[in-house]
Amino acid sequence: MERRFSPYCWRTKLALMHKGLPFDTIPWRFNEKSVIAFSGQGRVPVLRDGDRVVSDSWTIATYLEDAYPDRPSLFRGEGGRTVTRFVNAWADGVLVGGILRLVITDIFAHLDQKDRAYFRETREMRLGAKLERISADRETNVPAFRKTLEPIRTVLAAQPYLGGEIPAYADYAVFGCFQWARCISSFPLLLKDDPVWMWRDRLLSAFGGFAGKAPGYLV
Amino acid sequence: MERRFSPYCWRTKLALMHKGLPFDTIPWRFNEKSVIAFSGQGRVPVLRDGDRVVSDSWTIATYLEDAYPDRPSLFRGEGGRTVTRFVNAWADGVLVGGILRLVITDIFAHLDQKDRAYFRETREMRLGAKLERISADRETNVPAFRKTLEPIRTVLAAQPYLGGEIPAYADYAVFGCFQWARCISSFPLLLKDDPVWMWRDRLLSAFGGFAGKAPGYLV
Repeated sequence: MERRFSPYCWRTKLALMHKGLPFDTIPWRFNEKSVIAFSGQGRVPVLRDGDRVVSDSWTIATYLEDAYPDRPSLFRGEGGRTVTRFVNAWADGVLVGGILRLVITDIFAHLDQKDRAYFRETREMRLGAKLERISADRETNVPAFRKTLEPIRTVLAAQPYLGGEIPAYADYAVFGCFQWARCISSFPLLLKDDPVWMWRDRLLSAFGGFAGKAPGYLV
Repeated sequence: MERRFSPYCWRTKLALMHKGLPFDTIPWRFNEKSVIAFSGQGRVPVLRDGDRVVSDSWTIATYLEDAYPDRPSLFRGEGGRTVTRFVNAWADGVLVGGILRLVITDIFAHLDQKDRAYFRETREMRLGAKLERISADRETNVPAFRKTLEPIRTVLAAQPYLGGEIPAYADYAVFGCFQWARCISSFPLLLKDDPVWMWRDRLLSAFGGFAGKAPGYLV
């Protein structure tokens, strides 16, 4: 089954849905660098919009906001844009880093054979340990990960979304990380009575269940 | 020497400076609950603005933004306001919690004698250890604290303030935590080559050096 498991691509997909812009997606594997060489770099997401090619999920978000100002705003003002950058950076470090260590062997198990050597080599070098070692103690480590979500819970006690009454890009920046995990891992990152679970549920249901319908695990 | 060491009061003071509103401050000690009883609760900051009394630094910030819409904005739009709440919550947990464990004996040393028993009792109960024990390993623990600042560094690589080209309440929410520490502790939380140090320096110099002139340690 086809599983899309880039946190960054999920951010971009939700941003496109938020803007109400139709789009096609092309599945991509780590070893298909040549497929995105036209973007001048080697990572996804890459957005092609007419003649424009934009890469990097944050750059894509700001591009969409500026190119489609009449569509629903991702940031709702200049202050929203500048401060969302912090949420995005926090999610990149604390969530992507934290989740990766918990589900890395699940990612590996879902990889195309041709991607496995590349993934193992680059990730083991980056994290300084064997993949199997990194996630071995995840049952012990997941409470500490859940604790890092406390700022989200504080916000959700006051408003249903990080963006306020309705979702904004800050939500998608964070949600993309959980959706990435959900697509390739049955490991329960969140507990069902966690407000973060309920917030994620609302986003899984958003846009006609767009993210919720994606192949993944019900955790 | 009089030292003002509430992270929350510093947020409010910077917010008032940002709005260009004149104000007087009244020093307060933990044992002076009766002095702020008129606010209906027992914590600082408390803002009295004519007949209005507002407590809690976040509530005060939103009050100031709404009551003085023609003054420089703290949030620059609705998106800025809703997303700054996340930065505020992150600072409350990660920074206040992290810094407290590093400087708690320095706070104690600067307390009025009458506040010491109250402080020791409430903080030791909350943190589950003797004050002296909590900060004993701070030299060992400070690198991990500095690592939690990574999202700030990511943002500062792209813009001079969390608020963008100019400071916003997101900056004051974070800065208040460092200023709190600086007022009562000579322990070096930040290294001089850290972009966070340089950002803090810019805010110490803001508003004619308002925060920089406050009695504190040059760390």
